Amino acid sequence: MIHLASQPPQTRVSRSELATAAECPEQFLSKVLQNLARAGLIISHRGNTGGFEMPPTDEPITLLQVVEAIEGPMRLNVCLTSESACTRQSWCPAHPIWVEAQHALTDVLRKVTVQDLALHEANVITIGKPDPRHWN
Amino acid sequence: MIHLASQPPQTRVSRSELATAAECPEQFLSKVLQNLARAGLIISHRGNTGGFEMPPTDEPITLLQVVEAIEGPMRLNVCLTSESACTRQSWCPAHPIWVEAQHALTDVLRKVTVQDLALHEANVITIGKPDPRHWN
Repeated sequence: MIHLASQPPQTRVSRSELATAAECPEQFLSKVLQNLARAGLIISHRGNTGGFEMPPTDEPITLLQVVEAIEGPMRLNVCLTSESACTRQSWCPAHPIWVEAQHALTDVLRKVTVQDLALHEANVITIGKPDPRHWN
Repeated sequence: MIHLASQPPQTRVSRSELATAAECPEQFLSKVLQNLARAGLIISHRGNTGGFEMPPTDEPITLLQVVEAIEGPMRLNVCLTSESACTRQSWCPAHPIWVEAQHALTDVLRKVTVQDLALHEANVITIGKPDPRHWN
């Protein structure tokens, strides 16, 4: 997603280029790309001039959206899956802590977009290895 | 752990009582109790007068310690397992976000102790159903 977001608008990137960029096998990547396309986070084009590109809108795509498109909803515990997932939910002292932990986690992934990360990566490639003290 | 922490000091609780309190099968609980004892978070006594109790020290036990004793170290992504788990770690723009997300999550679970939760549970049982607005 970061590689795609770092391309000029409407650039189609082949699956093999994406596999090289992500350093992962093309077959594995195929399933990931299918999930991303299904969630509307990328557009998939078939045929000789085919490939993958970012959606035409400039809508920012968060890291949380990417992770959940690939792995499904992020839930740290069964009591976070629905209002009635566990009968102890209304009084269990651990439940509100799981709610808080889940919010803390998803808030971090929701506030960062792949567009931000693509800019960050571009800076690293131009300027060189980043100083880790500047990353948070 | 919350049930154990809510007992007077040095109270031994049987596995069947713990299974009733946790509403889970005894066989499943056995494995959990083994892990907790191995991590030193509970003391296991065998025999007729056996059972499980909290360690004699008053050391607070965090929810993170409990979760990690049962499930192993909490790592949101492979790049968080060691300094050299992924060759892209030093420049990947997503890596510091995973570090931040992991800290956000573990910070919540580290700041709450089972002793706190036991007090909370005692209040709920005495006072009745809690108002969810007071829980965070």
